[in-house]
Amino acid sequence: MQPSDSEDEVDSPDGPGSSHIPPTIYVIKFHPAAAREAIEWLIEKIEAKHKYGGAELLVRCEPQKQSQGVSVHVSATKIKLLEVAESADLQKKTSSGLVQDFCVRDLDQFLYPGLTLDTVLTPAEREYCVRHELDSIRAKQEEGHVPGYPQILLHPGESIISVYLAEELITDMFPLHDRQVLESLANKWYKAIFQIAPFGLQLSLDVEKYEFFQKANDYIERVLPGFQLPNLTGTIPKRKESTDESMDAKSEGEAFYTEEIRSYFGESVAMYFSFLGFYTMALLLPAALGLLQMVLSVDTLTEYSLFAAFNLIWVTIILELWKRRCAEIAYSWGTLDKQCQVESRPGFSGEMRQNPVTGRFEPCYPHWKTKLKVYMVSAPIVGLCLLGCLWMMMIAFFAEEQLMDWKKRYGSVAGIFMHVPSAFYAALVWLMNYYYKKLATGLTVWENHRTQYDHDWHRVSKLVIFEFINNFSSLFYIAFYIQDMDMLCSQVATMLIVTQMINHFQEALLPYVVKKAYNQFADSLVSQLRSHPLTAKLFEEIVKPVHGAEPEESPVCILALDPKDPRIVQAKEECDLDPYEDAYDDYLEMFLQFGYVFLFSSVYPMAAFWAVLNNVLELKTDAFKLCRVFQRPKVKRVGSIGVWQGSFELLGAVAVMTNSALLCLSPRLRHLAPTASPVEWVLIFVLLEHAILACKMALMWLVPDQPLWVRQALEKINYQSKLALKNERGKKTRRHLSRRFRSVHGMPRSGSRSRGTTPVAQNGGLRHRTPSGNYREY
Amino acid sequence: MQPSDSEDEVDSPDGPGSSHIPPTIYVIKFHPAAAREAIEWLIEKIEAKHKYGGAELLVRCEPQKQSQGVSVHVSATKIKLLEVAESADLQKKTSSGLVQDFCVRDLDQFLYPGLTLDTVLTPAEREYCVRHELDSIRAKQEEGHVPGYPQILLHPGESIISVYLAEELITDMFPLHDRQVLESLANKWYKAIFQIAPFGLQLSLDVEKYEFFQKANDYIERVLPGFQLPNLTGTIPKRKESTDESMDAKSEGEAFYTEEIRSYFGESVAMYFSFLGFYTMALLLPAALGLLQMVLSVDTLTEYSLFAAFNLIWVTIILELWKRRCAEIAYSWGTLDKQCQVESRPGFSGEMRQNPVTGRFEPCYPHWKTKLKVYMVSAPIVGLCLLGCLWMMMIAFFAEEQLMDWKKRYGSVAGIFMHVPSAFYAALVWLMNYYYKKLATGLTVWENHRTQYDHDWHRVSKLVIFEFINNFSSLFYIAFYIQDMDMLCSQVATMLIVTQMINHFQEALLPYVVKKAYNQFADSLVSQLRSHPLTAKLFEEIVKPVHGAEPEESPVCILALDPKDPRIVQAKEECDLDPYEDAYDDYLEMFLQFGYVFLFSSVYPMAAFWAVLNNVLELKTDAFKLCRVFQRPKVKRVGSIGVWQGSFELLGAVAVMTNSALLCLSPRLRHLAPTASPVEWVLIFVLLEHAILACKMALMWLVPDQPLWVRQALEKINYQSKLALKNERGKKTRRHLSRRFRSVHGMPRSGSRSRGTTPVAQNGGLRHRTPSGNYREY
Repeated sequence: MQPSDSEDEVDSPDGPGSSHIPPTIYVIKFHPAAAREAIEWLIEKIEAKHKYGGAELLVRCEPQKQSQGVSVHVSATKIKLLEVAESADLQKKTSSGLVQDFCVRDLDQFLYPGLTLDTVLTPAEREYCVRHELDSIRAKQEEGHVPGYPQILLHPGESIISVYLAEELITDMFPLHDRQVLESLANKWYKAIFQIAPFGLQLSLDVEKYEFFQKANDYIERVLPGFQLPNLTGTIPKRKESTDESMDAKSEGEAFYTEEIRSYFGESVAMYFSFLGFYTMALLLPAALGLLQMVLSVDTLTEYSLFAAFNLIWVTIILELWKRRCAEIAYSWGTLDKQCQVESRPGFSGEMRQNPVTGRFEPCYPHWKTKLKVYMVSAPIVGLCLLGCLWMMMIAFFAEEQLMDWKKRYGSVAGIFMHVPSAFYAALVWLMNYYYKKLATGLTVWENHRTQYDHDWHRVSKLVIFEFINNFSSLFYIAFYIQDMDMLCSQVATMLIVTQMINHFQEALLPYVVKKAYNQFADSLVSQLRSHPLTAKLFEEIVKPVHGAEPEESPVCILALDPKDPRIVQAKEECDLDPYEDAYDDYLEMFLQFGYVFLFSSVYPMAAFWAVLNNVLELKTDAFKLCRVFQRPKVKRVGSIGVWQGSFELLGAVAVMTNSALLCLSPRLRHLAPTASPVEWVLIFVLLEHAILACKMALMWLVPDQPLWVRQALEKINYQSKLALKNERGKKTRRHLSRRFRSVHGMPRSGSRSRGTTPVAQNGGLRHRTPSGNYREY
Repeated sequence: MQPSDSEDEVDSPDGPGSSHIPPTIYVIKFHPAAAREAIEWLIEKIEAKHKYGGAELLVRCEPQKQSQGVSVHVSATKIKLLEVAESADLQKKTSSGLVQDFCVRDLDQFLYPGLTLDTVLTPAEREYCVRHELDSIRAKQEEGHVPGYPQILLHPGESIISVYLAEELITDMFPLHDRQVLESLANKWYKAIFQIAPFGLQLSLDVEKYEFFQKANDYIERVLPGFQLPNLTGTIPKRKESTDESMDAKSEGEAFYTEEIRSYFGESVAMYFSFLGFYTMALLLPAALGLLQMVLSVDTLTEYSLFAAFNLIWVTIILELWKRRCAEIAYSWGTLDKQCQVESRPGFSGEMRQNPVTGRFEPCYPHWKTKLKVYMVSAPIVGLCLLGCLWMMMIAFFAEEQLMDWKKRYGSVAGIFMHVPSAFYAALVWLMNYYYKKLATGLTVWENHRTQYDHDWHRVSKLVIFEFINNFSSLFYIAFYIQDMDMLCSQVATMLIVTQMINHFQEALLPYVVKKAYNQFADSLVSQLRSHPLTAKLFEEIVKPVHGAEPEESPVCILALDPKDPRIVQAKEECDLDPYEDAYDDYLEMFLQFGYVFLFSSVYPMAAFWAVLNNVLELKTDAFKLCRVFQRPKVKRVGSIGVWQGSFELLGAVAVMTNSALLCLSPRLRHLAPTASPVEWVLIFVLLEHAILACKMALMWLVPDQPLWVRQALEKINYQSKLALKNERGKKTRRHLSRRFRSVHGMPRSGSRSRGTTPVAQNGGLRHRTPSGNYREY
């Protein structure tokens, strides 16, 4: 057992005295006033051996300046990373084309030609592994509180890092960019503005998968002829060999693949870009139809209905095909079964008990309590918020009408107040949005979902419902209460085009420019204040220790980085950036756009065209945002777009109803069938709606969620692990069986007539044993 | 290797010379004119060792009489049965409460107290194992045709038994009843007519499962308070210890459990009875509401809508709860994952190729070809048949109207023809039904589905659509075209009550009585004809050999049973019975009843009451039918009610539409809201329908298909097999990893600054190797 203890040194032959560590993966910034003991205790934990509850990572601190908090850089040896990759159940593609659990023993299987031990794990996977280790530093039974803070209690099994974050002992913890990789990525990604590349979002398929893929494609072609999406048929792409430095030179000018986004930013970001690309491609057809509709100026009932029906069924087809595509992508990423993961998320709290599945001691919380909280508390609260929103909207509309009346009566004096209600309403919506987001997050944390997936699901679904009401209720009001189609049309156009364009500017460019300017200004101000004799004292009063303890100036007792190490500057720069939470805002934007395009497509068919234009730009600004505006995102391993899939599907179903109703109300159509009675006219659209909904249902039900090749590959793995299980139990032998059988029942004899040829032996079968030489020799 | 060859003798110590074998499980009757070579070849195969492609079963023939075909009895030793149970992937409950693959090595795990090696496999499982072995006798490459029949070709890998059956070389093949078990089952089951037992259809839960179950129950209670079904809460039932002979005495008078039906008749039959019991319990509420509605004589719009809405949502709740219940049952039977089974059904044909999943050589048939056949050929044909049906119904209605006219004009002369069209229509429907069933079966066989599940699914769904149109189209015509609610009401009542009562008589009692009488008559006639000198010759002419060969009178060269063996008489008796195909007819009856009850529930609320009465009787007649009228059914291991679940759900959705429309049309309701305009009146019901449908959708989506405890149990097994897989790969060792790392890269050094601390070594890393003693010693 001894040798394994001395192995850490293998990786750092300079010994623990060296200040050099492998590239920094995480930077942890402690609060300037955090107690030295607490900091050192955590650092010790991070460095300690597994058997002492540590994470076995490498830590170096930045050379400290006065009154600044301790910042440490966390890294890991290559061996450690490979080990973690295995224990964190990372799945990777083997050279046989199947995706299997990563396993150090079978390392050769995962080494494609061109990959080495250094590059077998992508930057994203390395980040994931280090965070996984940091998160799994958990409090032990005997550790009652954080050293130095008797008031901060530690429940056994609690993730220590999350306690430090919650108590603000750690002010910031973020992965550091790998600048070299990032630059080469950015060059190909957002800088090439006029490149068609974003549409070629393809996986780097190896040959076997490509064959599978072709088959699946042939199959789609046969079952749904003509419905094939352009980017489902690709030529065999040249395999991206690795993510190492040599890549830049080789792949300059090549098409840019999702696989590369994934290898740096992780699965959730890559999934978003895949979806965006897929969805934009799928919008091309409605956009073309919208243009066609405008050019041809259709004007029969059948034509209108056909266009609407096609659009609405197309939505279902898009979403079904995306589900299949998503399964393919997730399979090749090894995240297809992430939904049923057994691991609990770091923030999950509960009594420490044995997990019924794994038998490990883990925080446990009764499932029914969570359900109860969801249905009995959260759901009513969300409902009330939605009602509040609707009520506010009604008041705004009512006030506007009143003003309209007053304007007529009292002339232009009232006219200047005309836009007050809507401005007031807009401000209120913004405010409510802000607080509701906090409320939703708080409620979801309080519901205490065990897995990250469930947590995200419940949080996002709360937000989506609210956003839906906020954004579309006024349109519904215009469409079905005021019934003014022209107003609806202009309103949709405004909201779609103007707000989206502003969004681009606001979400990517503005923060980048403003932040840079602000930072420069703030830095110069601070240094001036510090140096000026009048303000220096005041300044020190302001930057007061939060936890009461005086900042100790003695350096932390671990090795510091070389003061000239470029990572120190880099960490400072990136610390000032905003953290990238998740792709929620980006998905939300798509969701709202989807609503504007399809909910009212029969009134404003041009929406799809504008949406396509927007999305092309969106691909670029989102890329820019990720590379420049935010901190390096934390990798989330996802296997689908989660709650958004359901939201889009629901919106698709609602769109069928709204469009049927819009066509039914449309004054342009009413005169096309002057002979129909009003009831007949309504029934036509009820029937149309039912027919389209039935079609959608049938499609959703008939198209399998996973393509054949994915199902086969999964079955294959399942079968192999079943075989392995059987083998492990040992090859059954007849000998074993018949010997045992005899020892219980004596000589089995098939001569007796009735069933149960030998009487059941409670006496151990000794009575029946008739040993005979020739049966004994084996 | 030698010893294992001599093991068959272990089980039959009397040697191959003995004519006694364990209880007969299967009887195979060959055609009287089948070539002796073919018979002997197959018997040889059944007896041969596995390595020679045999089934290793025991065979004895009946003592032959002149001009009768050869009949053989097939059985198996206990050891063989256990072996097959393992290789056929049978799952059984272990004493730890989990359901796992049966494994001979871990036999002790499956031996509950009270179970012995003789009784660990139920009669149903024994039957399943023997048939599994018979079906897996497959033709080898070198066997080009059936011996004696050069024209009957054998494709390699084809199931030989199914070829013999298809070519009618085997005229009958059925499992023999175990009379002792059957009697004890029948006594408790259908004979106790006034017992409440059928409602207590519960699983025999062991204690651990019971706890799980209670938790799930608590959960339902909390999430859906008040929606709990009575038979979900049970006291801990006494565990049924075994199925051996001692059972009769002990369990007399105890409640009768599904588990016992399953242990004798297998999963598909037990599943049907569980469903019937569950569904009947669930109908009690609508029945009570129906009575209430009659007693209270509701007459406001709100009341009507509430009753209708409740009924329609109750349907969804029933079906959702059944899905969960079904998952519980299937889990405890080990059939939950039978849908994704890898084994292909015996009748599946195709090129012999490697299965992409298992790697075994199997018949393969492109998936897309099957799909193509389904969508391009079968679907249009089925569609045409449906159109034909509708067309015929229209003609019948039209003819009746014409006759009505003529009657008015020409008086009673035409009146006598009044019922000709409907009688003619009924006859046609009967005839079409008969041929359509053949067509559907033929089409499904031609579609060539790989798994039994897919095959059954496609066959049954074809039949269900047809039956739906046949049975309900006339009701729809009356309801929505003629719009005569009184006629509809009486029609529903007639069809529900009269036809179902007739059904009971026809399906169980009639065949039993008629068959017995007919058999006696036929036997006496044949013996008279044979003995009479005038007809004896003629008789021999009629019973002519089919395959041309003269029946050889030499006995088959295997051992015969004792001529006094009671099994010979039993086999003869049971051979005369009809084979039990599947529960299709029984499910269909429930499906149609479900339709009558819910499709028009707002018009005829009493339907549920009659349905309950009917079902109580149905439970008894179906039991009688299984025990007396049919041959012992072949066990089918099913995990759900298959296509019926979807059919019932679809019918539930259609019921929402029909009931909304019926309420909208109802003249009784119209005067309740005299101020509403016709359009508003229609919109009320459109909204009502949408609201109910949305509720249904939300329910279906929110209620998980499997209860928590089943999901946890499945996850546990999954986790264990994953662990086993990891263990099998060998415990990863750091030593392995770091040694390997060094041999490729030389000494890893974390001192260098940039990422990729050691340059990727194409040169085998020799340049970097800096061996140092202290790192080498481990």
